[in-house]
Amino acid sequence: MKAYEFDEAVCATPDDSGWSATVPDGWDINGNANGGYVMALGANAMRATGGRAHPLTVTAHYLAPVTPGPVTISADVVKQGRRFTTMTGSIRRDGRELIRLLGAFGDLDPVTEQTYVDGGPPDVPPMDQCIRRTPVGGTAVVGLADRLNMWLHPDDAEALDDRPSGTGRTRGWFEFRDGRPIDTLGLLLAADSFPPAVFNIPDLIRGWVPTVEFTVHVRAIPSPGPLSCSFVTRFVTGGVLHEDGELWDSAGNLVAISRQYGLLAKS
Amino acid sequence: MKAYEFDEAVCATPDDSGWSATVPDGWDINGNANGGYVMALGANAMRATGGRAHPLTVTAHYLAPVTPGPVTISADVVKQGRRFTTMTGSIRRDGRELIRLLGAFGDLDPVTEQTYVDGGPPDVPPMDQCIRRTPVGGTAVVGLADRLNMWLHPDDAEALDDRPSGTGRTRGWFEFRDGRPIDTLGLLLAADSFPPAVFNIPDLIRGWVPTVEFTVHVRAIPSPGPLSCSFVTRFVTGGVLHEDGELWDSAGNLVAISRQYGLLAKS
Repeated sequence: MKAYEFDEAVCATPDDSGWSATVPDGWDINGNANGGYVMALGANAMRATGGRAHPLTVTAHYLAPVTPGPVTISADVVKQGRRFTTMTGSIRRDGRELIRLLGAFGDLDPVTEQTYVDGGPPDVPPMDQCIRRTPVGGTAVVGLADRLNMWLHPDDAEALDDRPSGTGRTRGWFEFRDGRPIDTLGLLLAADSFPPAVFNIPDLIRGWVPTVEFTVHVRAIPSPGPLSCSFVTRFVTGGVLHEDGELWDSAGNLVAISRQYGLLAKS
Repeated sequence: MKAYEFDEAVCATPDDSGWSATVPDGWDINGNANGGYVMALGANAMRATGGRAHPLTVTAHYLAPVTPGPVTISADVVKQGRRFTTMTGSIRRDGRELIRLLGAFGDLDPVTEQTYVDGGPPDVPPMDQCIRRTPVGGTAVVGLADRLNMWLHPDDAEALDDRPSGTGRTRGWFEFRDGRPIDTLGLLLAADSFPPAVFNIPDLIRGWVPTVEFTVHVRAIPSPGPLSCSFVTRFVTGGVLHEDGELWDSAGNLVAISRQYGLLAKS
């Protein structure tokens, strides 16, 4: 059986105090592990502890940057319900807490009933007409971009070259470089992988956007194939921004929505 | 000094194990306390414990209904940072956990810089052309509606009489009945006070929408006067819905955004 990079990267081993894991190189932006990746790392230990297959709604608070190296993960059941298991999680290094998580885990049907859908996948051209996100763009070195194939909508892609589109939006395709199928854990990563939508708003500093809080609602198991994604920032006030994501699978179904509370980069 | 109803309802007293409080009658829907109210009750003890004035991003997981009567509240600092204090909170009765909270608290400037705002307050007619939400509507007895003045957009208000508008949206005005100024704690209540937007989607059961998870981002201190609010549900799939809220103050500034993960009512 082929070992996919992402499975290795979110793998945790049970030990006396919970779980231990190693954050590998290459899931980072400028040396700090991506927030979606660390959410997936924590959620993977949480779902194993709780015995429920899928993260359904997960919130992470980012307390300190996560660099490559060993970490410990604790996962505790808050309530074991019939439909949901509510859990907390925590990722630490040398006793210092880096991430706190709170989430509900449960089951998902293989096919999700589409009761009411006001909207659809974003209008992204075929991959060969998109701009591939590369590990070096603007002032950042995005190791993450080497693990993934991210194809950006040409209208949204020039922000990294200091030509913002004027609208706080990033759209594009997402898939794993090594062909790993995108499961619900992969959705947590995908929801935080794209260049910040705020980069397309003119006259703002394009630098590191620290995420304070990030919540993902997983709505369905993705069909095989790439995701089409859109991320929008409509409100930047008082140095704070939100970014709202929608992730759609290749069958045209909504598979996740996300929202983060982030901080505007400072000069 | 006048004692406002909401201040009394979110008041908690320190004791040996944390905080104790009493959930009063009348902040309920069919006997269960409103989710925004219980978030505010927990957040009030959290901000007092952490010594930071404002909830900035707060997530609640609802584990069991909260009926009137005594509760205990615990509040613990996860990380005391320079800009944010990250905290967990928990509301319990007889040892049983009812609500788990996770949030970041901090300061807000009296005036919030409006850097980029793509949108504006919802188009709601003046109050005298709106429909006042009454405590009895449809099959629910909404005690909450007696504490508040909620004026619904006439196009959105007939869902409670089984005439959904066709669009998953509820808009209206919010203020406290007794004239209490709306502060950042009041925003947590306001963000969950309106009739569910899903009620305006045709051909669905209009019954209790249990909230699993609810997150509010507080973006500014409201100017005096009523809030204009809009709540939208765009995706109902697999028995699950989201509801996204925007709360604007009387000066036309965005003061909060909210999102919940809820369950579709069943017949």
